[in-house]
Amino acid sequence: MIQKRLKALRELMKRENVQAYIVCTDDFHGSEYVGKFFKVRAFLSGFTGSAGTLVVLEKEAALWTDGRYFLQAGQQLAGSTITLMKAGQEGVPEIEEYLKDKLGKGDGIGFDGRTVTTAFVEKITKPLADKEIRIVWDKDLAGEVWEDRPALSKEPVWELDLKYAGESRPDKLKRVREKIAEREADLFVLTSLDDIAWLLNLRGNDVACNPVFLSYMLIEKDRAVLYAQKEAFDEKLRGRLEQDGVSFREYEQIYEDLQKLEKGKSILLDADKVNYKIRMCIGSGQKLIEQISPVFLLKAVKNATECEGMKQAHIKDGVAVTRFMYWLKAAIKTETITEISAAEKLESFRKEQEGYMGPSFEPIMAYGAHGAIVHYSATEESNIELKPEGLFLSDTGGQYPQGTTDITRTYALGELTAEEKRDYTLVMLGNLRLAAVKFLHGTRGVNLDFVAREPLWEYGLDYNHGTGHGVGFFLNVHEGPNAFRIKLMKREEENAVFEAGMITSDEPGIYITDKFGVRLENLILCKESEKTEYGKFLCFETLTMVPFDLDAVDTSYMNERDIRLLNEYHAKVYETISPYLSEEEKNWLKEATRAIGR
Amino acid sequence: MIQKRLKALRELMKRENVQAYIVCTDDFHGSEYVGKFFKVRAFLSGFTGSAGTLVVLEKEAALWTDGRYFLQAGQQLAGSTITLMKAGQEGVPEIEEYLKDKLGKGDGIGFDGRTVTTAFVEKITKPLADKEIRIVWDKDLAGEVWEDRPALSKEPVWELDLKYAGESRPDKLKRVREKIAEREADLFVLTSLDDIAWLLNLRGNDVACNPVFLSYMLIEKDRAVLYAQKEAFDEKLRGRLEQDGVSFREYEQIYEDLQKLEKGKSILLDADKVNYKIRMCIGSGQKLIEQISPVFLLKAVKNATECEGMKQAHIKDGVAVTRFMYWLKAAIKTETITEISAAEKLESFRKEQEGYMGPSFEPIMAYGAHGAIVHYSATEESNIELKPEGLFLSDTGGQYPQGTTDITRTYALGELTAEEKRDYTLVMLGNLRLAAVKFLHGTRGVNLDFVAREPLWEYGLDYNHGTGHGVGFFLNVHEGPNAFRIKLMKREEENAVFEAGMITSDEPGIYITDKFGVRLENLILCKESEKTEYGKFLCFETLTMVPFDLDAVDTSYMNERDIRLLNEYHAKVYETISPYLSEEEKNWLKEATRAIGR
Repeated sequence: MIQKRLKALRELMKRENVQAYIVCTDDFHGSEYVGKFFKVRAFLSGFTGSAGTLVVLEKEAALWTDGRYFLQAGQQLAGSTITLMKAGQEGVPEIEEYLKDKLGKGDGIGFDGRTVTTAFVEKITKPLADKEIRIVWDKDLAGEVWEDRPALSKEPVWELDLKYAGESRPDKLKRVREKIAEREADLFVLTSLDDIAWLLNLRGNDVACNPVFLSYMLIEKDRAVLYAQKEAFDEKLRGRLEQDGVSFREYEQIYEDLQKLEKGKSILLDADKVNYKIRMCIGSGQKLIEQISPVFLLKAVKNATECEGMKQAHIKDGVAVTRFMYWLKAAIKTETITEISAAEKLESFRKEQEGYMGPSFEPIMAYGAHGAIVHYSATEESNIELKPEGLFLSDTGGQYPQGTTDITRTYALGELTAEEKRDYTLVMLGNLRLAAVKFLHGTRGVNLDFVAREPLWEYGLDYNHGTGHGVGFFLNVHEGPNAFRIKLMKREEENAVFEAGMITSDEPGIYITDKFGVRLENLILCKESEKTEYGKFLCFETLTMVPFDLDAVDTSYMNERDIRLLNEYHAKVYETISPYLSEEEKNWLKEATRAIGR
Repeated sequence: MIQKRLKALRELMKRENVQAYIVCTDDFHGSEYVGKFFKVRAFLSGFTGSAGTLVVLEKEAALWTDGRYFLQAGQQLAGSTITLMKAGQEGVPEIEEYLKDKLGKGDGIGFDGRTVTTAFVEKITKPLADKEIRIVWDKDLAGEVWEDRPALSKEPVWELDLKYAGESRPDKLKRVREKIAEREADLFVLTSLDDIAWLLNLRGNDVACNPVFLSYMLIEKDRAVLYAQKEAFDEKLRGRLEQDGVSFREYEQIYEDLQKLEKGKSILLDADKVNYKIRMCIGSGQKLIEQISPVFLLKAVKNATECEGMKQAHIKDGVAVTRFMYWLKAAIKTETITEISAAEKLESFRKEQEGYMGPSFEPIMAYGAHGAIVHYSATEESNIELKPEGLFLSDTGGQYPQGTTDITRTYALGELTAEEKRDYTLVMLGNLRLAAVKFLHGTRGVNLDFVAREPLWEYGLDYNHGTGHGVGFFLNVHEGPNAFRIKLMKREEENAVFEAGMITSDEPGIYITDKFGVRLENLILCKESEKTEYGKFLCFETLTMVPFDLDAVDTSYMNERDIRLLNEYHAKVYETISPYLSEEEKNWLKEATRAIGR
């Protein structure tokens, strides 16, 4: 089957005089999750993982993927004639090295220019500079091969009420236009789906877990055009957009419109986000201003309504997850529970919450050694039964019209070892201490990340991921530019200064290979603290309202302040969540959030 | 007098068809301190402060300086016809705005191109783009006016013994050449005096407090040329340099040599350091690689000999400053002490130390409200008497062949207020906690600065300077790229990753206007801690060995760990310093470093 598909592709490659065809995983917008229409690489290679790049040559083919998928890809590629390239392993070439080795002078590289960024194309072609390679970016050859390709998703788009959004579409457009003017641009090309959904107060369902819809926008001083699929909008909604100064054109029309632009415009776009075809359709007669999207930056600072909504969403979510914890701690002694059935159980608690719209990302439920695999997601094959011992890591989130949640808890299912308790406690200290910092305006995530790592570093431990990411308001669970990390980003705005209204996850962890994993994640809202002659101070308010597991805490690692921070958080959880619980649950929560001493 | 000098300058300006002549404060190397030869701005304007830029037009003149010097400049400029521009004050134009306002189309701006950087010239001329301004950079007109100008300093240059330097000149040159090759450069232009002194294991005395000598270098794969003043070198030394592959040419010859370079070379230089004339002498036929000097980066990581030397230097310096503290705490009750006499007293204790070479910077001795002025330096006019009350801030350092020291202590001269004690304690906590961090390799100063500020920020306090700077090895007291700061630098290398062997100051402070200042500064050496499966951990070792003042400590602000850190440091100070003290001093130190409880 796969060989037949590759053969068909190679015939088209011959037709187009293309010697190497590249198939990536992205949709046209660089979205984190993609719809069925975009799963071309899986169709052509048989490999279904969430990350991978296929390169097809005339006589051979290779697929690059990362450590999470070496096993799965090995199985799925068996018999396909496609070589598995274990990215990052010693001796494995990078894609561009492979291409340099295989291609000759004047050869052609093809790809669907809508599914890659300019940065990717530059990376791939730079080492080939002296081979005079042709780039064929306007042909979706793989799509041509895929005869029964699913249609592009065109789920209905709907309006997010102002009572949730807190700022009208015209007001947002006005602020964005101010930023465009500040950057001295005539036209702003916006292609990130969550940016568009935020700007227009619209939501959709074209991407799993993210309530966004396929679209592009062009924004000028006096004109704004939304490129989207007509069938996804009812006439009334299009009318209201028109009223607010947003005209409507067909989704794919943007490419032609960009080509037809009059010359001499200053065009603002984010080269790290915009796809290569968009970039290529902008003629050389235009002046490019390649900067971070102003919408990306504005969206990160939540308004008062969004902040209030996020608090409400976190109460609902807190009730669901607290009930799950109560159920889990009891049921583990009596019921058969697996990773997948636990996920279903938690989902059932969330579904009881009014307005729940579905998960904000694919849930991670990882028992024992599975918890040490950072990107683990239980499949039918990997699914294991939980036992009344050790640690169980659960990282899940929900979408509500009031906001998006993202919470990780790690539960003691029985007696723990001293090492498990120590590591749980150190991770919890990182979480609590980071949430408790007070800092001058001007402080960035790189300035604060150490606070979360310090307790682990003291013991020679670490976690190989950032401490936290920005979170959308009823949008994508991963947003920027706010984040906690040790590493500097190349672009200054991506090392964002914290502003009141930013919401960030606080999720230190520890992963002990073949043994267990601990991660504890709360969302924290940046807000104003005091203002003194030295400047404006900020602090965080924790939104997530679910107990830590006192059964996993070893207080000998905690100082007096740590004890106070934990007890204060637990008192707040009880106060916030208990009104929504049954007497039985309430009694349990009282005990689970009891004040502890040293 | 000043008016006469300005008149003479204006005649030369007419001769050269220059409508605006700019006089800066720098020497030809961007040194922090400059020799007498370079004090042209003081000569022409009468203003003697350490920072200021004079702009002379045909009919008027203006001088820009910062808040430290508003008073002094106002007095010194009186009657000079020069307008004082209080930089940063509302309504005061920047130099480039002033020039834009005053100059007409085709006018000329003149300056001595050796005393400004390319960055400065770009900043000044950018707003003038449409005026077709001519730039006259090769005429030192102000120097022509200055008839009895002091000669360029040409103090004897001498060799730093390998037993202090720890790495030979050829070995250093080899490492530098490797870095030049990595950056694919043919030629490296080095103009920073401390970089040259480090590279050649030479020291001099052409700049106050910095043991460096006036020089430039050109380094190629097979050739290295030192441009310096022949009179400063004896023949033997020049012979040894020649033996090590370093040929010698006259100081100013570099400009001509750069102009004569064959075309097509890749030339590495640091545009932020190299002067404008150097830059202009490099023809357009060359390829410029504008990056941070590799010597600057190599020099920051001290070798084992340098680290050991720094420890020895800090024992000597610690003995001197501890004796000073002992003397001060007693003498304040019986003797008349002023800021200046205290500085002389401390200098006399340092002079007792074998090998002491002089101060590493102009001492800061600031009593009471003077302590709140960050850049305060006592003059005959400002000098005040110390009283047996309040706080006395003392920031001084010494040069020894084994290394450079920089220490700030703040002393309680009598009873303190609760506010003074709190602030002293909070600053001390920042100092102690920062020195006690343990961190993964890859961590930068921006990741750690928060640790020093956190105790102050908790109370809405802050200090408006970085927490620490790199320190040279028997070289400049201010070095890079290692530093502790909250703010990001533009160039990535300047946000340096800590490496074992880097020495940095740890100097939080607090400045309460009109009341007092506290700053506590130790130098800390980065060194290896443990290596685990998560990576290589680093930590700091405190080099500075002088007690904090327990009379100023309020333990109610300290947690158990803080108490332990303070007691451990004090025990180390006693152990290290007491062998060099008299019985009487020793008894006092025992008490001054006693273990305290909460």
